[in-house]
Amino acid sequence: MSAAAHRPQLTSARRDLTFDVTATDEHGARSTVAIAGEQPLTLYVDRREIVTLMTLGQAPEALALGFLRNQRLVRSLDEIASVQVDWEVGAVAVITRGGAADYSARTATRTVTTGCGQGSVFGSLMDEIDAIRLPDSARLSRGGLYALLDAVRRRETIYKQAGAVHGCALVRCTDGDTDGAAAGAQVLYYVEDVGRHNAVDAIAGLMWLDRVDGADKVFYTTGRLTSEMVIKCAQMGVPILVSRSGLTEMGYRIARQVGLTMIGRAANTRYLLFTGEQRMRP
Amino acid sequence: MSAAAHRPQLTSARRDLTFDVTATDEHGARSTVAIAGEQPLTLYVDRREIVTLMTLGQAPEALALGFLRNQRLVRSLDEIASVQVDWEVGAVAVITRGGAADYSARTATRTVTTGCGQGSVFGSLMDEIDAIRLPDSARLSRGGLYALLDAVRRRETIYKQAGAVHGCALVRCTDGDTDGAAAGAQVLYYVEDVGRHNAVDAIAGLMWLDRVDGADKVFYTTGRLTSEMVIKCAQMGVPILVSRSGLTEMGYRIARQVGLTMIGRAANTRYLLFTGEQRMRP
Repeated sequence: MSAAAHRPQLTSARRDLTFDVTATDEHGARSTVAIAGEQPLTLYVDRREIVTLMTLGQAPEALALGFLRNQRLVRSLDEIASVQVDWEVGAVAVITRGGAADYSARTATRTVTTGCGQGSVFGSLMDEIDAIRLPDSARLSRGGLYALLDAVRRRETIYKQAGAVHGCALVRCTDGDTDGAAAGAQVLYYVEDVGRHNAVDAIAGLMWLDRVDGADKVFYTTGRLTSEMVIKCAQMGVPILVSRSGLTEMGYRIARQVGLTMIGRAANTRYLLFTGEQRMRP
Repeated sequence: MSAAAHRPQLTSARRDLTFDVTATDEHGARSTVAIAGEQPLTLYVDRREIVTLMTLGQAPEALALGFLRNQRLVRSLDEIASVQVDWEVGAVAVITRGGAADYSARTATRTVTTGCGQGSVFGSLMDEIDAIRLPDSARLSRGGLYALLDAVRRRETIYKQAGAVHGCALVRCTDGDTDGAAAGAQVLYYVEDVGRHNAVDAIAGLMWLDRVDGADKVFYTTGRLTSEMVIKCAQMGVPILVSRSGLTEMGYRIARQVGLTMIGRAANTRYLLFTGEQRMRP
């Protein structure tokens, strides 16, 4: 193998993300309303059907890769030869370098439990969570958090046009310094999807492709902090998770277990810090 | 078989639906905040593991039944002998009257595609949708819709206490009459869950248990009208679907295909009628 980092062959498949339909309001007036795209995308690995994802379609190749990464069906990007999306047939074909036999052996015991949270594979992920300890060196200042919230608020989104999608972002927050520089936030990726798990998976795929490490980043989501969201954030090695929405019992428990800093109900200059207080500074 | 309707043996398992945790706000003040419960519930049918659902736990027996109903894994309530929930081990055990061999044969071809929308089994449901035509006799008046929106708005909910859940309801709306009686709305079931698919599945289970027909009812959800929500509503035979949220392309297409009346962005006295206009009257 060459020393250069391997990158799979990828399509760059595009489709419309919003569609205009006609609706009638409470006064009987008819108008044109934009709605969010949603299309089935069936994932095949070495020609074996794995799952059908309902997706907005903003980043389908990254979604396929991130799904395989977060489900632990593929351990390294080096195993992937190509990812080809064809919207005409609603399919994404992933070809591994190891080939079908290798892949089938690994997934043989997994299919039955697929569907957690009516979400995704769960049982073995909880075992894996026991091994995760997030890096403790990352810090987030209040100014950095406010810069993040401002950056995502200003963004032009499908949500603003059409609603019915969730957004996720990977963000690098920087503190202000004593010389008077303001705190800042650089949004590295912002992906929206009809399913919030798809949006986080697509970001996992983009991080893989760009070899981006999560240890000094902040993950932002418009969605709720349920168990799966917290598990995926921890799997991606991102130590700080921020949401506009609330959280659940299992989300809270898992965040404490893995040492994640979890901030909920965050908008403008308000937030609630639930876990991992040691990473937050004034 | 006796003439009386068969009813499976059910537990009535309860658990706490909210939990108090401590959070720190943007001023550094610590306070107690209620968060929504979420626990894994692994479904076994005739001792075979099917799926792990992450659930609030408001109606776990009905959730298990509704999951099996909406996934078309069980065709009739008459096939079910018992449903037993044990929160200690996070399991719900369903025993069929036909026994394991019968059930295994039916599910053999299905496990691979489980996980749609990262949601649930999809492929064969789309085939089934082709056969569904919703009854056309149901009507909804504007007054009935407003009464529905008022009834769900006034309800004491886990959402109001803790956020992070979606609610679904099955409602019987009545028109006002020429003698001056006001339009009304009777909420037959209201279920909240961390996953909106769980909430709709639990209502499907309750409808099965009580032998309630959907043809003259309205289904309400706080969640978005995505493909799966529309498919499930159609499967349950409910011809009118109302949501506080928006809709997606596939939700819209399937609603048109099956002849569903779909109303989105509905709150107070505002709404948008997207499909099935013939069932709406002034």
